[in-house]
Parts: sequence; structure tokens; C-alpha cells
Amino acid sequence: MKSVIGKNITLALYGESHGAAIGIVMDGLPAGIKIDTDFIQSQLDKRKPKGKISTQRREADDFVITSGVFNGFSTGTPIHIMIENKTQKSSDYQPNLPRPGHADYAAHIKYNGFEDWRGGGHFSGRLTAPVVAAGAIALNILKNKGITVGTHIKKCQHLTDRDFENYAEDIALCNSKYFATLDETAGQNMQQHIENIGADCDSVGGVLETCVLGMPAGVGEPYFNSVESVLSHYLFSIGGVKGVEFGKGFEFADCLGSQANDPFEMQNGKVVTKTNNNGGINGGISNGMPLIFRVAVKPTPSVFKEQDTIDLTSMQNAKLSLKGRHDPAIFHRARVVADSMTALALLDLLVQRYGERWLLE
Amino acid sequence: MKSVIGKNITLALYGESHGAAIGIVMDGLPAGIKIDTDFIQSQLDKRKPKGKISTQRREADDFVITSGVFNGFSTGTPIHIMIENKTQKSSDYQPNLPRPGHADYAAHIKYNGFEDWRGGGHFSGRLTAPVVAAGAIALNILKNKGITVGTHIKKCQHLTDRDFENYAEDIALCNSKYFATLDETAGQNMQQHIENIGADCDSVGGVLETCVLGMPAGVGEPYFNSVESVLSHYLFSIGGVKGVEFGKGFEFADCLGSQANDPFEMQNGKVVTKTNNNGGINGGISNGMPLIFRVAVKPTPSVFKEQDTIDLTSMQNAKLSLKGRHDPAIFHRARVVADSMTALALLDLLVQRYGERWLLE
Amino acid sequence: MKSVIGKNITLALYGESHGAAIGIVMDGLPAGIKIDTDFIQSQLDKRKPKGKISTQRREADDFVITSGVFNGFSTGTPIHIMIENKTQKSSDYQPNLPRPGHADYAAHIKYNGFEDWRGGGHFSGRLTAPVVAAGAIALNILKNKGITVGTHIKKCQHLTDRDFENYAEDIALCNSKYFATLDETAGQNMQQHIENIGADCDSVGGVLETCVLGMPAGVGEPYFNSVESVLSHYLFSIGGVKGVEFGKGFEFADCLGSQANDPFEMQNGKVVTKTNNNGGINGGISNGMPLIFRVAVKPTPSVFKEQDTIDLTSMQNAKLSLKGRHDPAIFHRARVVADSMTALALLDLLVQRYGERWLLE
Amino acid sequence: MKSVIGKNITLALYGESHGAAIGIVMDGLPAGIKIDTDFIQSQLDKRKPKGKISTQRREADDFVITSGVFNGFSTGTPIHIMIENKTQKSSDYQPNLPRPGHADYAAHIKYNGFEDWRGGGHFSGRLTAPVVAAGAIALNILKNKGITVGTHIKKCQHLTDRDFENYAEDIALCNSKYFATLDETAGQNMQQHIENIGADCDSVGGVLETCVLGMPAGVGEPYFNSVESVLSHYLFSIGGVKGVEFGKGFEFADCLGSQANDPFEMQNGKVVTKTNNNGGINGGISNGMPLIFRVAVKPTPSVFKEQDTIDLTSMQNAKLSLKGRHDPAIFHRARVVADSMTALALLDLLVQRYGERWLLE
Repeated sequence: MKSVIGKNITLALYGESHGAAIGIVMDGLPAGIKIDTDFIQSQLDKRKPKGKISTQRREADDFVITSGVFNGFSTGTPIHIMIENKTQKSSDYQPNLPRPGHADYAAHIKYNGFEDWRGGGHFSGRLTAPVVAAGAIALNILKNKGITVGTHIKKCQHLTDRDFENYAEDIALCNSKYFATLDETAGQNMQQHIENIGADCDSVGGVLETCVLGMPAGVGEPYFNSVESVLSHYLFSIGGVKGVEFGKGFEFADCLGSQANDPFEMQNGKVVTKTNNNGGINGGISNGMPLIFRVAVKPTPSVFKEQDTIDLTSMQNAKLSLKGRHDPAIFHRARVVADSMTALALLDLLVQRYGERWLLE
Repeated sequence: MKSVIGKNITLALYGESHGAAIGIVMDGLPAGIKIDTDFIQSQLDKRKPKGKISTQRREADDFVITSGVFNGFSTGTPIHIMIENKTQKSSDYQPNLPRPGHADYAAHIKYNGFEDWRGGGHFSGRLTAPVVAAGAIALNILKNKGITVGTHIKKCQHLTDRDFENYAEDIALCNSKYFATLDETAGQNMQQHIENIGADCDSVGGVLETCVLGMPAGVGEPYFNSVESVLSHYLFSIGGVKGVEFGKGFEFADCLGSQANDPFEMQNGKVVTKTNNNGGINGGISNGMPLIFRVAVKPTPSVFKEQDTIDLTSMQNAKLSLKGRHDPAIFHRARVVADSMTALALLDLLVQRYGERWLLE
Repeated sequence: MKSVIGKNITLALYGESHGAAIGIVMDGLPAGIKIDTDFIQSQLDKRKPKGKISTQRREADDFVITSGVFNGFSTGTPIHIMIENKTQKSSDYQPNLPRPGHADYAAHIKYNGFEDWRGGGHFSGRLTAPVVAAGAIALNILKNKGITVGTHIKKCQHLTDRDFENYAEDIALCNSKYFATLDETAGQNMQQHIENIGADCDSVGGVLETCVLGMPAGVGEPYFNSVESVLSHYLFSIGGVKGVEFGKGFEFADCLGSQANDPFEMQNGKVVTKTNNNGGINGGISNGMPLIFRVAVKPTPSVFKEQDTIDLTSMQNAKLSLKGRHDPAIFHRARVVADSMTALALLDLLVQRYGERWLLE
Repeated sequence: MKSVIGKNITLALYGESHGAAIGIVMDGLPAGIKIDTDFIQSQLDKRKPKGKISTQRREADDFVITSGVFNGFSTGTPIHIMIENKTQKSSDYQPNLPRPGHADYAAHIKYNGFEDWRGGGHFSGRLTAPVVAAGAIALNILKNKGITVGTHIKKCQHLTDRDFENYAEDIALCNSKYFATLDETAGQNMQQHIENIGADCDSVGGVLETCVLGMPAGVGEPYFNSVESVLSHYLFSIGGVKGVEFGKGFEFADCLGSQANDPFEMQNGKVVTKTNNNGGINGGISNGMPLIFRVAVKPTPSVFKEQDTIDLTSMQNAKLSLKGRHDPAIFHRARVVADSMTALALLDLLVQRYGERWLLE
């Protein structure tokens, strides 16, 4: 089960950056789900590189669904989504010089030299495109159940976005944008900052913050399938993610229990918590409040500045000057991947709790 | 697969805080592993509450192994470890008043009132005792393969421990202590701080930092079974853990790529990285450097200060004043749970890569 | 996942014939299922050896439930059922002389001499006792949903029982008996036959036939999780089972398609098939007709006649004369194990289709 | 995990008979396995319909590998094999008239009318083509480890083939033929018989017998992952398979233990059994003898004779006269699917025991 995930909704991911095609097999959806191909394409568009803040490799990312959808609805059998690669340029890569911060060296040891090194091979960020396509299906299903997901760019170095305030509106706001900040000026500043850093042959990291609204209480399992365990498993599957925290997260270490606990109260006949420091999860189980979590995305390891590395042929120290097309930042593109992974993880937990038929109710 | 985890080394965990017994079934070990019951007991002792910084519930935690071990060695068939509960005091708990920050309310919704509410039931921290017992077996196996694991208390509010310096020595140092700081004075200060907070009817959170030394390069899988994905899945299974970060983690958001990348170099004929910002993992695969990661542990939700809650019977607002025996901090006891979860997660990944026979080589 | 099975309802089985205890952890049941301990005991009683047709080892098989049940109802968290071993007599076994037809030799190679050889160790038929206990819970749940399961002894050498006729009555009839034939005389003859064979220091095999009534149409999955695939997986987990066939089974090889197909017709507004050659399963999916299948159980390999074997110490040919307590036939005791495995397999498939909440509706 | 199977070597199968393409994602192979595309094609050719004993739908079955293979060797990441459908003729099918013996009705209930009914959709035997392609890779890996697999047509109504005699030669003989009987005359007679039955608008079933030579002792797991459990799970995934038996199988019910047991003896310094009634498996574990098992394949349900069915639109009784292209027998084509499923199941068990690196040793 190396490249397979999910108990109820399973995903099998395949492909390489410069191979013929990348794709995903999504299984476990009930029959009768309307498949909105326009929404899938619009989500893929959010992942696409644009402007000067992204790589100049510009793939069309036209997807085909070769099975599992009939007359516009899911058939209940596996859905296969495929995207052909079209603009490979493998000559930019040197297999003997592993790029610092990339999977190159670890993959070389793991696969004993048989890895497809072209463009990072299976480790390329391109593999997130099929995940976004499958995620779009999941997001739509959740939306039909009243559960919405939105992610904004919380931070890029010293530049920060405002916090979520009105959840429903802010989620809609994130999802309407390509560069997803809640504060427009913050977004403009960040984009200018990324552009400057790219011009300086460098790259930069950031923090994404996700909100899930409408999540019912009682989802998730104690211990090994806590909401945090399952969500983090999916989120850390995104290349470049190096941290995940829920609610107050690492800030809890600065808190007293009396500050950290979220007292319950009745509000319009409904149980809510007065604060949401726990990010909507208690004991691994959703408590009915919005889920709030953040992921740290490291700077793209592909920088054009000269770097120290080793030569895998001679096993000597060497210098590396990257060529090719690379992103000065990926967190703004990773945003929609985070939404997708979130939706896929939660969908699996929801089906575990309510059964697949619930998705159609 | 709710309370089951692992692909090659599987764990099935059961029990409630005030039930007859708690335990774990550990399957997948090859035959012929020496089982060191003294080491298991010594690890359980590290988890036990001690002094004024822990709960006054003092269980003996005597474990029995009822299967899978014969003449002191693993038989290759499932190992069942059981610990009887002996000092339950259920009268301290009020099932109708969910404790803020605890699983009580979420569990009540999830299990529709059928949950065993006594002492937190299945959600109790007591369930980590069998995990520690299984983890002790895993830690010993790793040690025989030259892989050592150590966790220290990095932070508790404003008080911080020093960083790992000499990995091998520092790991040994952590593992020799009950309150695991590398700096003795920092540890004394933290313990005094916890005691003071406990005296004030409150509790406090902290950050743990783990180092794994001797991890070979090439372990882990791309995407859905990255080292980060698998480790975080296990770590977030520990009650109270609300954040996990690898290497620089959330600090990556403050970095440029040129600062964040870890350049390769040859050192005594071996490939190393000059820095270890990525915490020993590139592209989800171990790169041969020490694994470094941190977990955020929230303050124990059980505080003696009066708190707002609701009454599940009347569905009205209510006040809660906890009685019973509770910890003013749990991170120092969670330390050995983090070691255990780490060992269990890595053992699974190592067996996936090298096969179970490798454990005996 | 060696001794673990199930996607939604998972079982982790442990124990050895002469170890301290055997048991099972059953996870995945929703909260609020009434647990009928009398029924569990009555099912265990059906598995117990009785009279001269069974081994003289007579275990009480008193079970304890140490977790997952509270006030008589499932809590929704793992149920642990344990049975202590009390009448071990290991001196009857010679670890160096593998018994023909038993797991002894294969286990010796597999576990490299570390296996618990006493009484067959983990491979003992005793391990089916916890399966029967878990199966009893499953059978009760199915019954509440209108699904009943019954198994009769179809054949023992030349002696045969009559076929199922009135399903509902015949299922009740099987389940009311210890030696489960539909025809009472056939049963008497078989029991006498087994007794004679036992007196002759030999053993004998048989065929069991199971009927599941009330199974809704649409359960099971195409290909890898067909009803046949899943049921056979569970049924072949029973020691001694060497064949499984559905509907006409191997007789299909004698048939033309025009004879084998089951034509559909409307009957009282309901779709039925005129015949049921396919045993209630088409394309791996239940079609609403009764499930019918048979399992072949080989003769108990433990016969008192002298047998050829090898000596694992000297690696020379040797003679083996068994001592101890053995069954001249096990199929009549395996009957309730077949019922249990059937219920556990179907419960998993039903939860996959309808969700766990359906079990409570 | 509906259309996904395997613990170490996973398969995700997708596609419909009349959809754009069918395919499989195979994951878990180590890097460095030579992929022999000629052998894959030759195996697909054995599955293809030929002559008058098969359907007249003649697909080229040209496969493409879009990922996981680089410079002729496995990369260690998922292999995606795809086959386009080219000769669909959906007008031959009537969605409102379910074909007796087929999945049509059960699928209609399961998928609530959203199923792709064209040509049987996902339930079509066409889906076995990608399984054969993946199986070819597995068969080649096993062969390199000295393990060979062969299946012959044991029986078709009154016509029978001879038993396996010289295993190695007979396996080679099966594998050299399209219609795989060991006795050439038996094969000619069977083909003539199938042709006659086809001319009579009917179809016929048969029994396949498989031998696996070179299987090491000690593979498989007790109880839930016995060799029988795992093999039967895969074999019952083949459409039309309704029975699986190992060694003497159902004949065991006619045997005494003294006849059924396989006595051990030393032969040229090696442990063997004098007979092989258990088909190479004791206690669920391979014992080093050849694996022998049989599967019953029912007659193709698509017969041209008029049949009774119901009309799903009017919910009235109806008559069905099939049009289109159908096989009068499928067992001769299913033979290579049985080989493939066998190889895939055993490969998974072998990797579980020896680790993936063993495949390359």
C-alpha cells in the first residue's frame, strides 16, 4: 500500500513528471454522484502556475476520465482520471547531481539508480494535479452535505494575512482567488515579495491555514484514526509540507489549561464552544466547531543560486547550477492541494461514520 | 480499522480507564526476537505518574504477555500484552457534565450515550500504557539494528531546554531520566513550574523534540506513505498532541530556499548534508541524517478551576468543578509515548523496505 | 496484517493452545449493540467437544469481556474477549516429530524453531473459540436485521444429509442441535460412524453446507471483494477447510449455460430467480436469493495409527505414534465456526454497503 | 478498498467493457525488475478469443505502460498499464432486461440504475486483460526465483484431461498452448465439444487445475492469511469462478485421516511428503511441495437460447433473446487469468515473508 491511501474512498496515484501521463484511480464513491467536470478543471486551474511567481512550465492539464462515470454520474465503480504530460524538457536535469532539499538523493538510494530522475520523476509536484482532480470531486460532495473547505495564505516570511473572521464568507473569498489571501493588500505584497525573491534566484516558504465549516460532531476515531492523525497523514503527503498544527497548535505550549480549554455553552439550542482553541477536535473526534489547522510549506528547493552537492558518479563534492523552469514559491499553488487532501481525508472519515449512502441523502 | 494501525507490524489497542483491563495485540514480528521484559517494565515506569507533577492515581501497571512469546523469544505469532486496572475511582466523574477540552462531549455524540464515560473511558491516557509496552519491544529491535530514539522536553511556556548537540550522548541522557531535559537546571525549573501551576489548580502544555539516530537512507514512500505522513499519523494518535513539525518545521515559512536547503557533501566517504533543516527527510524518504521532529502537547484539560460547560441531561449551561486525580502536565509522561509511537512507526516502514528477516540479521 | 482481518469490522486474533490465554479484539461495531453473553456461551458450547466423537480435552471455555461493553451494550470502542487455557497437557507432544497433515513442519520452517509447538501452538483449533465468541455477536446483529445463518453436515464419507428445503425452518433446526444434520437418522448414523472410526484409531472428513437467508441484493463488490472472495477468505481461515464452493460449485463443470443460469421472475411483486444454481450471488454481488455454499473439511490429521515422519533433530526418517487427546472428526464442531466466519464476513460487507448506523436501525 | 487488493503488491483495477479504456495500477515492486513487454503481450494473447470456441469481439489488446517503467526496468514507483477499448458495440445490449446468471440485476440494485450497463460494464470479462498484464510481470518475477505456474483444463462436462505427472514438463506444456490440456486428444475433443455447444446456442463450464512448482516452505500466515485464504480471495475475483479446492479438496470428505495425511520422509537430504493430498499447504503455510488446486468455472451465462427474465422498467416478466458476440466457453481463456491471479497472490505472500529485496537477489 505504498501509493494507495484511504479505507473507504481509496486513491491509487501514479506517474512521473516527464513520463507519458500521470493519473489517479479513485474508488469507493457510491453510484449517482454528479461529476462536475467544469469544477474539476477550475480547481486544476488554481493549481496551475501563473505569472512571474510560478514556474514557466505551462502544462494544459487537460484531464480525461476513462472509467467510473457514465452519463455524467458516478457509476459506483473506480473512477480513473488521467492527465497527459506534454511539455517535458528532460535535458534541464542532471541525474548525477542531486539537488539539495529535493528527493533526488534519497530516491537514488531507495531505488538503487533505477528511479526516473527526469524532472524529479514520481516525486514531482506535478503528481498533485490528479490529487486536485480527485479532490474536486470530494469537495463537491462535501459541499452538497453542507461542508465547505477554504485555505488562505497565512504567512510568507514577515508578511501575514488576517485571520479567518466570518468563516462562510472568508471560505468563499479564498476560493474565488488564485492567490488566496483574505486581505487583498497582504496578497499583493506577498506576490511582489515572491517576484523579488525569484528575481534574486531564490525561493521562499509560507504557512497555509485551512478552515472546514459544517463538519458534524462525532467524526473520527480514538487513537489511531483521530481526525488529526488522518488529516496530517494526507497533508504530509504533499511535497514540501514540514509541519501541521491544529487549533492553537504549537502555541499550546505557552498556555495554561484554563486558557486552552474551550468551555461549552448552549447557543440557540445548539452546543458550541465559546472559544475554538482545539480547532474543532477533542480527543481526536470532531466536536461540531469549525476545523482549523495550518501547514508549513518549505521554500521550493529548486533555487538558481549555485549550491554545493555531490557527484553520484564520482562520489566527489560538486557544484550545482540549476537550469530549467522552477517556482520561486509553491505555497500559493499548494493551497488547492491542501483543500483537496483535506476533502479526501474527511470524506473517508465521514463515510466510515455514516456510510456511503449518506453522501446521496 | 478504527483502533488498528500498521501494515507490517500491526497494533490492535483496547481498553477503558475504569474497565477490567487494557491491552494491545502486536502482530508481524518475526520469530526469534528476544523479548526483554525488564526493559518493557522500565519504559512503563517512565510513563508512570510520579511526585507532585503528576496525577495521584498510581497504578502498578504490571503487564502480562499471554501469547506470542515462548521461552523468552517471539514466536512469530501475535503478542498479546495486558494490564489490569486496579485503582479505578469512578465516583469522581459526572457523565452529564462534559469536561471542556476533553473527548467527553464528542464521544457522547459519536457513541450516542453508550460510551463508557468513567475516567474518560477509551479516551483515557491510560491507553498509552500498552502502547509503551509494545513500543519497548520496537525500541529494542531498532537498537539492535543501530537505530536509537530519544525525546527531550524542549519547552514549557517560557522555559526551554537546550538543543540536541551530541546526538548519541544526548539520546542516552534523555533515556536515563524520568523528567527528560538535556539541561538539568532547565528540568528542575520546569518541574518547579509545573508544581506551582498544579498548586494553582491549573495545568500547562509543552513541546517535545525527538531525535532518531542511525536511520538508513531510502526508507519511507513517496506521497501517501512519506516518513512524515506515517510518523505524524502515529504521533497525533497520542491524546493531547496538537502539532507535529519536522526539521525547521514552521520556521521554514521564514526562510529562503538558499537558507533552507541542506547541501550535500562527502564526509569520510559517506554522503551527508552540511545542515539538517529537513530533519533527515527529503521527498518523504529518509536521507541518512538524524530524524528530528517536535510535537506540541496541549495542557491537560482537567483543571480544578471552575469551568463553564453544559448539562447533557437538561441541555442547559452549567458549571463544572472537577474532583479526582489529574496531572498538572502530561508532556513529561508523554515523552516515552512519543518514543514508542516513533519506534512503532519506523519499524513498520523499515520492515516494508527490508523485510522482517532483516530485523534478525 | 497477518492475524488481522476485516475492513469495517476488524478482528485481531491471538493465542496458543497451551499458552496462558487465547482471545480476540473485535473493533468497528457501532455503540448501542446489545451484547448477549448467554448466546455467546451457547455458541461456544456448540464448539465444545462432547461424547466419544470428540477429543477428551474438555476446556470450560469461560470467556471474559474486558473492554468495549458497558452496561450490557457495545460502547463503539474495541471489544476484547479472552478465554483462559486451563487443561494444557504439553507432555503429550514431541516437538522434533512433526505430525503429518498438521502445521508442525511448515511452522517449524516458518518460525525457525521458535514456534510454540505445544499442542499445535497458534495453529491449534482452540483458536476458533474466540472466533466463535465474536461470531456470536455478529450472528445476533444479523438476526436483528432479518438475516439468519445455518450450517448442516451435508456429508461424511458415504453418509449424506438431506438438502435444505424450507430454509427458515431448516436453519432453525440446524441451530437447535449439537450435531447438525437436518435428517435425524442421518445424524445418528454419522455419529456412530465417527465413533467407530475413532475406535479404529483413525479420523474422517466431511462437507458442511451453509445457508444465509434474508441477505439483501446489492451487497459485495466487483472483482477483488466479491462475496465469494470475501467469504472464502474467512472460510479458508478455518483449519482443515480445503474446499469452498458456491451454489452448484464444481458441478457447474457438468452443466450447459441454459441449465446453469437462474431465470428471473416476478413473485408477489418481488424479483426472484426460479432456480438458485448461483447460490445467491451474481457477478460477485448478492442477488437477494439465499446464499448457499459448502466447505470441505479434511479428516483430523491427528490419528493414533503409527505414521511415517522425520526427526527434525537428526533429520532422519522416523515413526510417530501420537499420544494425547484428539478428535476423530472436527467437522461437526467446525460447523459453528463456519457460521461465525460467515457472519463476520457478511457483517463487514453489509457495513461497507450500508454504514454502521444501519445495524442499529 | 473495493477494487484494490494486496498488502505489499497492490493492484487497483478500473474500467468498463464499453468505456474508453481499462487498466490497472500495480504498486509495490522494487526498482530494477526487468519488464518484459513481449511476455506481457504473449500472455494477453492467451486470453484473447480465438476460433469458433470464443466470442467474435476481437480487441487488439494493445497495452501501454504510462508510468513506473524507465529504460525497461521498474522504477519502484507505481506501474500503470492501460488498454484502450476499440470495438464496442453497445447496441447489442438492452439495459432493462437483466441477463440471467450475469451481474446485471445485482448491479442494478447495487448502483441504483447508475451502472454502466453497456457490455456488462465494470463486470465484463474484459477487465481480466489488465490483470493478465500485471500477472505477466508477477509470473516473470516468480520464474526468476525458480517458481513456475501452470494451469490446464482438467474437465469440461464428461471430457477430462490427464493429471499432472512430471510437474516441470507439464507446466511448460500448458504454457506453450492456447487451449491448455496436457493430453492433446483430450484438448481436441473438448474444443470440438465447445464448438458444437456454441452452434447449439448454448455454453458450457469446466474445471481448471493449477500447479505451482518451486514454492518454498514457510510462506503464508496462520488463520486470516493462510495460503488458501489469500489464493481463494484472488481466484474468486475471476468472474464465473464458483469453486476452489486445494489438494484433494472435496474428496477429503470421502477419506480417513490415515489416507489423507501426507507422511514426511527425507529424500536426498530434503524433507518431502510421500503423497501430496494437502496440495502443498499445511495449516495455511506452504510445506515445500508443489501447490495443487482447482477452480470450477461456470458456463458463460450469455447463451443465445431464449431465456426468462424481468423487465426492469415495467417490473413484469419478460423474454430475453441475446444478440451480440459471446463465448460458448470461457474457462480456456480464464486459464491465463488463473495463472495471473495465482502469481499475484503468491508474490504478495512471498514479499510479506522475504521482503521486496529478495525478489532481486
